[in-house]
Amino acid sequence: MHPLKQLMNPSSIAIYGASNNPMKMGSIQLANILETGFRGEVYPIHRSEAEVMGIPAYRSMAEVGKPVDLAQLVLPTEVVPEVMEECGRAGVRRAIIISGGFKEVPGEEGRRREREIKEIASRYGMRFLGPNCVGIMNSTCSLNTTTIVNPPMGGRIAFASQSGAYTAMINPYLRAQGIRMGQTISVGNEADMDLVDCLEYFRDEGDIRAVGLYVEAVRRPREFIAAARRLVEEKPVVAIYVGGTEAGSRSSLSHTGAVSGPDELYEGLFAQAGVIRADDIDHMLDLLWVLSMQPLPAGDRVAVITNSGGPGSSLAYHLEKAGLKVPAFSQALRARLDAMTGPLTYTGNPIDLTFETNIFIFKQLLETAYESGEVDAAVIYGIFGAPDFMVNLKKRFPDLQAMEDAWDEGYRAFLAELAAVPGDAGKPLVVMSFLGTGSSSIRALVESGVPVYPSASRCARALRSLLDYRALKAAPAF
Amino acid sequence: MHPLKQLMNPSSIAIYGASNNPMKMGSIQLANILETGFRGEVYPIHRSEAEVMGIPAYRSMAEVGKPVDLAQLVLPTEVVPEVMEECGRAGVRRAIIISGGFKEVPGEEGRRREREIKEIASRYGMRFLGPNCVGIMNSTCSLNTTTIVNPPMGGRIAFASQSGAYTAMINPYLRAQGIRMGQTISVGNEADMDLVDCLEYFRDEGDIRAVGLYVEAVRRPREFIAAARRLVEEKPVVAIYVGGTEAGSRSSLSHTGAVSGPDELYEGLFAQAGVIRADDIDHMLDLLWVLSMQPLPAGDRVAVITNSGGPGSSLAYHLEKAGLKVPAFSQALRARLDAMTGPLTYTGNPIDLTFETNIFIFKQLLETAYESGEVDAAVIYGIFGAPDFMVNLKKRFPDLQAMEDAWDEGYRAFLAELAAVPGDAGKPLVVMSFLGTGSSSIRALVESGVPVYPSASRCARALRSLLDYRALKAAPAF
Repeated sequence: MHPLKQLMNPSSIAIYGASNNPMKMGSIQLANILETGFRGEVYPIHRSEAEVMGIPAYRSMAEVGKPVDLAQLVLPTEVVPEVMEECGRAGVRRAIIISGGFKEVPGEEGRRREREIKEIASRYGMRFLGPNCVGIMNSTCSLNTTTIVNPPMGGRIAFASQSGAYTAMINPYLRAQGIRMGQTISVGNEADMDLVDCLEYFRDEGDIRAVGLYVEAVRRPREFIAAARRLVEEKPVVAIYVGGTEAGSRSSLSHTGAVSGPDELYEGLFAQAGVIRADDIDHMLDLLWVLSMQPLPAGDRVAVITNSGGPGSSLAYHLEKAGLKVPAFSQALRARLDAMTGPLTYTGNPIDLTFETNIFIFKQLLETAYESGEVDAAVIYGIFGAPDFMVNLKKRFPDLQAMEDAWDEGYRAFLAELAAVPGDAGKPLVVMSFLGTGSSSIRALVESGVPVYPSASRCARALRSLLDYRALKAAPAF
Repeated sequence: MHPLKQLMNPSSIAIYGASNNPMKMGSIQLANILETGFRGEVYPIHRSEAEVMGIPAYRSMAEVGKPVDLAQLVLPTEVVPEVMEECGRAGVRRAIIISGGFKEVPGEEGRRREREIKEIASRYGMRFLGPNCVGIMNSTCSLNTTTIVNPPMGGRIAFASQSGAYTAMINPYLRAQGIRMGQTISVGNEADMDLVDCLEYFRDEGDIRAVGLYVEAVRRPREFIAAARRLVEEKPVVAIYVGGTEAGSRSSLSHTGAVSGPDELYEGLFAQAGVIRADDIDHMLDLLWVLSMQPLPAGDRVAVITNSGGPGSSLAYHLEKAGLKVPAFSQALRARLDAMTGPLTYTGNPIDLTFETNIFIFKQLLETAYESGEVDAAVIYGIFGAPDFMVNLKKRFPDLQAMEDAWDEGYRAFLAELAAVPGDAGKPLVVMSFLGTGSSSIRALVESGVPVYPSASRCARALRSLLDYRALKAAPAF
């Protein structure tokens, strides 16, 4: 069993650094552990308080008197070594060291301290994350040890990051998109466990279907390539790397003490490892979302179904720019589509419904396009959001509220059915919409596993990544 | 005075197509006109109803008996010509024709009808937008004739579009970003007024500081170039073009009856016109936002101020990739910055505050960086959002609510001050944050004119566009 397995799925956690002062980082983390639904034992360790936030506290690890799977430390740098000793002596074998002040600060002292905690851990057979990290999040056991409240848990994406901010602070962004995370690991300075460990660990995590990495420096390139290639046989890996410029490199050095290399070097490393490179965090999340939720297409032919010309033209343009095809449909398929739609509908592909008023037609069109054998994937624009035109009308026609409620319920049920079509057909679907998760329609879609992007280019690069992963899986090297 | 001036700023509007049936497009548009704060006269024209939505209706334009500046028509295609006649006879000189069924539909009949309405308009000296468009929005007179409820009005951006969806449907996206629009014009089939007219009209609109275009085909290239170049002397123009691929072209033809050209042709056209080309609608809005709100930088040197290494490294990387510089600061400047910050702060640029707890330090750092003369622009990461860590704590420490409220108020006041720094210094600022407009902090910032983007690459390309526009303004051709 990988050492991260126990760390990510502990039955019991001790927290150093939580107190009855709510402004302490440890207190915030403890509140989050207690409120996120974690069902294991939680032991605040505090030298003087008998209770912390209303639960019993312990003066030391020894005083707990029961086995503890994981200790998380948010303590002043100087006391970390002695507390690691205390944990080791008490039989704790996994730790997360949040504290900073180690290799990432200039000077020999930080490096010496980092060697010291490695030596202590090694002596006791302890494995740890950090130092200088922000904690972990694991939906499987409803565990959130970060300072971030209510991360959107439950998705099929795992994310390991050399930046704490990118695992923790992105949560409002994730929520706004409708993306859920299965597991996140902030590796910090990687004094013990690193990105390679994360790649190994995620391979056997059944709920995880796609893995993201934020990389400032790969410390063990050979092992990284080997672990990534094994993982990519099962699940796609998408990475961002930002160390390759002069200022980027200067920044990384001051951040995690990692020496980054030229951009081209990492480009080559990722290529060897079968890792898809993304440009930035938003790009990475776009790809992980579709890769974790949608089936892989057998080819590059895409159906575009729209109720508006602009998004239709934009989708056609960006799909072709991304190397995908938007093939003109056969006469036979057009005849079938024409029979379902009004005279103002163009069925050539993009299918443009224009003034078609039957907003439930999308499912039938999608099924017909998939079944035709003429496309491998689809994009829809034209998901309806009742609140967007009813608000002012309701001031003049109060009876509309009941109608809207009934309509909304029916439409959400329809969207759940629509979202099931790609899985049944084994062909991916993404949706383009400006509505966002403020709309109940979009929430219904994304909760059913359909990624929704607010622009044509983002839809196109998402579908492209499915093809890219398919090619990587099929490559002889794997 | 440009003919669009009266159309966009009418004292009185007649609406054809609104009725007491709330499910009609015209009814939705009328409700929006009535509820958005328009202070002019509004006359529903209806052949049989005496009142529409509680206001007096008129059987015909003649029956109104007063001058009407603008008529908007949402009627079946067949009756549009006779209603245009009716409007012309009654002295109406501006119209918006929402109805479709003209040049954009295959066959000669649509083209014939479009020629017919042009001929009628010409006979009466009427100027019109459309057909096949979605209406207009003008913050100056609080007028919204589209089907979209409560568009985020009041910004300094104008947008003219050959796609109705991109002027109307994007509003939830705009709201989520915090972007406001000053004026939008959906030009539809451009039977009479077109994008060139919009470029001419926007030039003299004092509240408008940046202009966006969605282009499927430029019908008058020479006039387009001339009008754009005149406009670009005053205001930047950002355009997206999506007609340049095989399927994109097929789609555009079915959409507005416009024949698009190869991508390279439009690339050249935009270059000649001094127009900045954006990739897609989200990209275009990112650029228009910063171009409409922030001062132009004198050079390419950027200060990065962050409280987290990952975003700092990402910003450094993407700024350099975008052709900007993140210069290492001089010893003198570093000494000044060191004096303001704690020992764990790195002040080399990126300035990385790491565990610095004074979240009000950003303003002082920004001012010092600007005043040093070592940078021309800045990006900040690390805006704080109280709700993001207080929610769970408050369950255990109920007294925190009052503290949070007081804190939030103080912090928002601080952010308004921070937002004033770039204007005072004459150097632009953008912010990177994952918080989004769900956070009161971000709302305070964006309402004060600072664009906020959720990724480093988007910050970088925004700042880059300021430099690009500065170069375009300075180019000898202008």
